[in-house]
Amino acid sequence: MRRIKANTAAGKSVVITGGQLEDLPSLLPPSGLFIITDTNVRALYGESFPAAEVLTIQPGEMSKTLTVAGDLCSRLLAAGADRSSFILGFGGGVVCDITGLVASLYMRGVRHAFVSTSLLSQVDASIGGKTGVNLGNYKNMIGTFKQPEFVLCDHSLLSTLPDIELLSGLGELIKHAVISDRVLFFDISASLSRLFDRDPECLEELIYRAVKIKADIVRRDPLEDGPRRVLNFGHTFGHVLETAYQIPHGIAVMEGMLIASELSVWKGELPYTEARLLKSTLESAGVTNLHELPENIIRLIQKDKKSEAESVNMVLLQSIGKAVIRNMHIAELQDFTEYYKQRKI
Amino acid sequence: MRRIKANTAAGKSVVITGGQLEDLPSLLPPSGLFIITDTNVRALYGESFPAAEVLTIQPGEMSKTLTVAGDLCSRLLAAGADRSSFILGFGGGVVCDITGLVASLYMRGVRHAFVSTSLLSQVDASIGGKTGVNLGNYKNMIGTFKQPEFVLCDHSLLSTLPDIELLSGLGELIKHAVISDRVLFFDISASLSRLFDRDPECLEELIYRAVKIKADIVRRDPLEDGPRRVLNFGHTFGHVLETAYQIPHGIAVMEGMLIASELSVWKGELPYTEARLLKSTLESAGVTNLHELPENIIRLIQKDKKSEAESVNMVLLQSIGKAVIRNMHIAELQDFTEYYKQRKI
Repeated sequence: MRRIKANTAAGKSVVITGGQLEDLPSLLPPSGLFIITDTNVRALYGESFPAAEVLTIQPGEMSKTLTVAGDLCSRLLAAGADRSSFILGFGGGVVCDITGLVASLYMRGVRHAFVSTSLLSQVDASIGGKTGVNLGNYKNMIGTFKQPEFVLCDHSLLSTLPDIELLSGLGELIKHAVISDRVLFFDISASLSRLFDRDPECLEELIYRAVKIKADIVRRDPLEDGPRRVLNFGHTFGHVLETAYQIPHGIAVMEGMLIASELSVWKGELPYTEARLLKSTLESAGVTNLHELPENIIRLIQKDKKSEAESVNMVLLQSIGKAVIRNMHIAELQDFTEYYKQRKI
Repeated sequence: MRRIKANTAAGKSVVITGGQLEDLPSLLPPSGLFIITDTNVRALYGESFPAAEVLTIQPGEMSKTLTVAGDLCSRLLAAGADRSSFILGFGGGVVCDITGLVASLYMRGVRHAFVSTSLLSQVDASIGGKTGVNLGNYKNMIGTFKQPEFVLCDHSLLSTLPDIELLSGLGELIKHAVISDRVLFFDISASLSRLFDRDPECLEELIYRAVKIKADIVRRDPLEDGPRRVLNFGHTFGHVLETAYQIPHGIAVMEGMLIASELSVWKGELPYTEARLLKSTLESAGVTNLHELPENIIRLIQKDKKSEAESVNMVLLQSIGKAVIRNMHIAELQDFTEYYKQRKI
């Protein structure tokens, strides 16, 4: 078990990799516990939950709405949760995102923490204190910054994770490596089959190193207006594909990374051989069928960027292991997407 | 025009008393402005609004829901608001409370400020950074802490305020005096008719002194777990009456202050003559028909206190001008309410 500090201006947080569900009681207050989870996770692990009132939501992105968050607040109130209560989000990215928001809002804020049950939430969603729900097709348009007191990552929970969800989590794992750790990228590339076999040692080691990268970045930039933006590598195009084709987040991010690496080559920032290297690893992981960019891609990017400005910040690569932020005019981005669409045919 | 700093951990804020709508342009960014207001305020002052996209809600407490907040976020998105936008809440307490919440949540937080159009919001609701909406009958169960960058109080706007709303605001004005400024209490008592005549000089002077009291208290205790709690004087019983009988907030608070002062006498904290003095001033202001306490008063108090504990903190008076916080066992509070109900018959 290793503990990684992920403190930010939004609070203190510790991520525990290589932990076990058995460690939970020592981390939680003796009473006043409420668990938010989804029906899938409850069916699998409900018997291992600590003593608590349990509130379930439907699994999947459709639950990430303000209506569901408000409904959870009503159920907390009816169940007697008060200012001194403690909310434990037990699940994957969706459960973590909505639990964080509910803990921000309920009675103007109550304590909260996570047990992360997916690779995606263990390496990404649960770290850094961003909470959020979607507004229609636009992702995370409503949210807050609030840190979970701890994030417990029990990697044995990943044994029940469907392969497609493992692949999705792998997307963020690879992204962390691609933006700042070339050695980790090669280690992941060499460990793909062990990862899909849920090899415990391999999972623990690679997740620990990826969490460390994210925690170090968010610690330096809690409100995401500086270096933290490199974490968005692959996300601008990825979010658009995720929404347009309803594909899992991390898989969309991998496709987005491929597009962003082509953009980096197009801009003269990245050698072509590096883009090929990334593509080859993602293909080995299983990302082979790439989706077309939607027609209104530029408009969707502006919404995703939460900006109506004439230029947007894009995360580009200079090499595998080194990301940079470049401000690009919308017209230039439009040129690239035209080039990219034609080039694909 | 006087400026009062009301900075807290939730941000910096300045309250401008004796300001004028004409001062607005110099306080606002040159573009990207969105105004949230209600239909009443828009009908009265819409022509004086600065250039902006205007979003209206229905007037009144019924609009203080998470659904309305989410709807406002959707309308902001459709209208093109982005992370760099500025939201101006233009209205009374309800508009300020919901605008603050929307500004907290939309894209994880955008800049915001208020033009306060009611006495209640000028002396109370707009100051201190508490945002909130109700959950069913329970007030402000969902919310955040976020400071408006400025609160512009143009007292001439109070000329269109209905008498009952002025009386409601007077409730909080008197409360600020009762908890910490005996001289202000006597000055208000002596100025009631000038206040109801909307005498500009009188309004400006008394509002300035009341805002100063609240700003000083919240500055010292931004998250309301210390001395700020005295601001809740009259609110525990007041919230219950407000919900049970659907009466304006500040009027319910005045009735709540009378009950809390009787509790203070019952507890031996307050001389009976002081309670009489408070009652006499509130009667002169127009608070004459007192409502009965509901049957399930203790349960409602626990919900309002956001606590399921066996004891609750109550704000009591030791004299007019000095409030104290006392922890009371629920059973003792029950005894008092029995005494109070019988005593009234």
